[in-house]
Amino acid sequence: MGKKLTSREEDYSKWYNELVVKADLAENSGVRGCMVIKPYGFAIWEKMQAGLDKMFKETGHENAYFPLFIPKSYLSKEASHVEGFAKECAVVTHYRLKNAEDGSGIVVDEDAKLEEELIVRPTSETIIWDTYRKWIQSYRDLPLLINQWANVVRWEMRTRLFLRTAEFLWQEGHTAHATEKEAVEEADMIMHLYADFAENHMAVPVIKGTKTESERFAGAVETYCIEALMQDGKALQAGTSHFLGQNFAKAFDVKFANKEGKQDYVWATSWGVSTRLMGALIMTHSDDNGLVLPPKLAPIQVVIVPIYKGEEQLNAITEKVNPLVKELRSKGISVKFDNRDTHKPGFKFNEYELKGVPVRLAIGQRDLENDTFEVARRDTLEKETVAAEAIIEKITSLLEDIQTNIYSKAKTHQQSHITNVETYEEFKKVLEEKGGFVAAHWDGTIETEDKIKTETKASIRCIPIDVIEEEGKCMVTGKPSSFRVLFAKAY
Amino acid sequence: MGKKLTSREEDYSKWYNELVVKADLAENSGVRGCMVIKPYGFAIWEKMQAGLDKMFKETGHENAYFPLFIPKSYLSKEASHVEGFAKECAVVTHYRLKNAEDGSGIVVDEDAKLEEELIVRPTSETIIWDTYRKWIQSYRDLPLLINQWANVVRWEMRTRLFLRTAEFLWQEGHTAHATEKEAVEEADMIMHLYADFAENHMAVPVIKGTKTESERFAGAVETYCIEALMQDGKALQAGTSHFLGQNFAKAFDVKFANKEGKQDYVWATSWGVSTRLMGALIMTHSDDNGLVLPPKLAPIQVVIVPIYKGEEQLNAITEKVNPLVKELRSKGISVKFDNRDTHKPGFKFNEYELKGVPVRLAIGQRDLENDTFEVARRDTLEKETVAAEAIIEKITSLLEDIQTNIYSKAKTHQQSHITNVETYEEFKKVLEEKGGFVAAHWDGTIETEDKIKTETKASIRCIPIDVIEEEGKCMVTGKPSSFRVLFAKAY
Repeated sequence: MGKKLTSREEDYSKWYNELVVKADLAENSGVRGCMVIKPYGFAIWEKMQAGLDKMFKETGHENAYFPLFIPKSYLSKEASHVEGFAKECAVVTHYRLKNAEDGSGIVVDEDAKLEEELIVRPTSETIIWDTYRKWIQSYRDLPLLINQWANVVRWEMRTRLFLRTAEFLWQEGHTAHATEKEAVEEADMIMHLYADFAENHMAVPVIKGTKTESERFAGAVETYCIEALMQDGKALQAGTSHFLGQNFAKAFDVKFANKEGKQDYVWATSWGVSTRLMGALIMTHSDDNGLVLPPKLAPIQVVIVPIYKGEEQLNAITEKVNPLVKELRSKGISVKFDNRDTHKPGFKFNEYELKGVPVRLAIGQRDLENDTFEVARRDTLEKETVAAEAIIEKITSLLEDIQTNIYSKAKTHQQSHITNVETYEEFKKVLEEKGGFVAAHWDGTIETEDKIKTETKASIRCIPIDVIEEEGKCMVTGKPSSFRVLFAKAY
Repeated sequence: MGKKLTSREEDYSKWYNELVVKADLAENSGVRGCMVIKPYGFAIWEKMQAGLDKMFKETGHENAYFPLFIPKSYLSKEASHVEGFAKECAVVTHYRLKNAEDGSGIVVDEDAKLEEELIVRPTSETIIWDTYRKWIQSYRDLPLLINQWANVVRWEMRTRLFLRTAEFLWQEGHTAHATEKEAVEEADMIMHLYADFAENHMAVPVIKGTKTESERFAGAVETYCIEALMQDGKALQAGTSHFLGQNFAKAFDVKFANKEGKQDYVWATSWGVSTRLMGALIMTHSDDNGLVLPPKLAPIQVVIVPIYKGEEQLNAITEKVNPLVKELRSKGISVKFDNRDTHKPGFKFNEYELKGVPVRLAIGQRDLENDTFEVARRDTLEKETVAAEAIIEKITSLLEDIQTNIYSKAKTHQQSHITNVETYEEFKKVLEEKGGFVAAHWDGTIETEDKIKTETKASIRCIPIDVIEEEGKCMVTGKPSSFRVLFAKAY
């Protein structure tokens, strides 16, 4: 296992980076900015995918797959969209390599230059709306509710595992509607779906809201978002859902005949969450001993470690453990019996603590004699001895408890880190000393927003959907404001 | 729906292309050679993925994710590998676009040229073995059994939906082992797993075998394959599993300490199936009316079409259908009640025939009176009237029947299209007049294999694993041969 993790207190950022690698979640690859998602990390992502995919399908969405490449000219069709993505994209210019004539190795074959460059998709609105033009003729073809699971590339200069990588995995929903109202409702519904997933599967409390103009997606009329709060007081945007108006329909000429037979442009939404959620999950719950995983997403929910000397004791333990494993599995609980003889129990305890396995059972000679198990829960690190006859019930209730408990803990942290301030001085002080979300009045201008961001590195995370009307004055300019917005430093 | 499909008799190739588009499986995109997989087609692919993924996990494999991009220098490290893939790859050379100085639009920013070009993965051996070097130190780290679901790109000049596209979806397994024996066993086991999937899920009979040297994967020591036979008598390679020896371990310097503490190179396999399987599925079972799908992979297994005049009749039908739908779903059968009032029953019948829904129920006034349903099976197009009380049992047994029947039909076709020939004249005649697999003696040389391919377009599909020793003479050169190999024209 190597030496202990750096503590959060000591260096939060270093703690995160070490944890991701040591817990076998992901690592950097030989390709700048691109990560390798290791099997244990990918197993968590697969559980997230399965949960989200089920929710998408239950709300009427279907999966499809669109090309990886986007012709350069497509990207340019929606003005603010190209502005947002052109500066950080991978460009394919050739389709062949060849042996260098001077024998120096393999080089790009200049005879195989593409007529038009292809961009590796940073997001798929353009290629999808180019396709939707062929699929939509009449109101009968609407709504079109489609999602795709895909890899995308944005050429970020400073990358961090899961949080910001050049290539990442995500899902992107792209829907088409006959009316503005329907499209707005879809974008809003998805924000709530994302919040539901974050809170009830990931145990990550989030604030739902809308973005200010300058924080909106490139090409959106309105961006809905969910914002989570990490243990270091920084916010993390965990998912966004965009009402795109008719921008892409106009850019790609997607019209439909409405019920009255009149031609109109289609209304659109797009929405996505990515492997960035892994970063949110890790930073919300984990501690100085390693990962803490919500039972609903843990690849291994229960691990059983035998403590034994010699084959005979191991056999006796195995005989007792096997029916338990079988019963737990029949209840849909994923369980691992780690009977490796190459590692000692103490090593195994550390390993599963580091990997965030929610419940750990240990069984040794004394437990055999007393017909008991030692049960440890990962979130609080508490241990107790439980009679064998009560063990199934104990495990079942513990898994529920842990799911609830880590959510409550994160919720308490979030609630105690939303601070109302009245002055800019106070604002800066809270940001500096406490962090978290700071609720303040703002005059609604991009200029003031920019000034605050430049001076404090805090951005407006969102205008919460449950914002309360309240007369006030912008903390910077003193101009009138009728509600508070949430600022924070963010990942 | 448009007009009828071109028949197979008339133009098999056109029939296939039309069917793929009309049955809403896939279509060409605005990007050369890249397809859009439409929701109905993707739903079939998702079922394939789920089936295979379960089989991989049951045999001890885990999923992970490796980068999309491969540095040019990685590709060059294994000599035959680069030879195989350099001629058809997408090359990323820049990481930014900019506004042209002359205002002519968006152009590649020459200041953002990559120091080393990146290749969009055509397959991931190189990037994965570069990673495995860090993961493998000792025999305790082995075997490493990893799979990834991913998109890959091979710049094919002539493309066809599903069968050959520039971008396609696949899974690629990459395993590392301590001994040659173990690696060979893994490659062989996967070939059997693929055959099991093809036959028992897709209802596509296959021949298992090994490839000749010239047909092997670029970098493999041995390639195991499964070969299917399409209705037009052409073969289709449906999956391959490669024993890679120590080639990639040597190229990427991946050594491990064995039990005796000595350093040795790791033994490798890789294996994959792709969206090409969709092509095999379509061409094996479908007919001039459209798709025929095996119940195990059909997104909709049962469709119910009401035949009614007026709201009252529809209500009576709905009342009878609802509990049936519920009961079928509780049995895990996917069912659609198509009560759209925008289309007539005849239109719906054609649509579900085109889309290959295995079982169709119709219910009208007379059925209401007699307490019956009309049941039609897609494979044989037979119809019968079934009493409501027997309908669940009927549907359940029909779904099993159809799965079995389409397999048997395909198996009969395959068996009747394996022809033994003794002379080259006979060989050409069979190829021309009958098609299918032709079993012939061959002298084992690449020269003869090439000559046959050039002259007849038939390649050696495989040396079947159950090949029988038999003294004979090469049909071309007359040199001695001790078993027959299978030739065919192939997709």
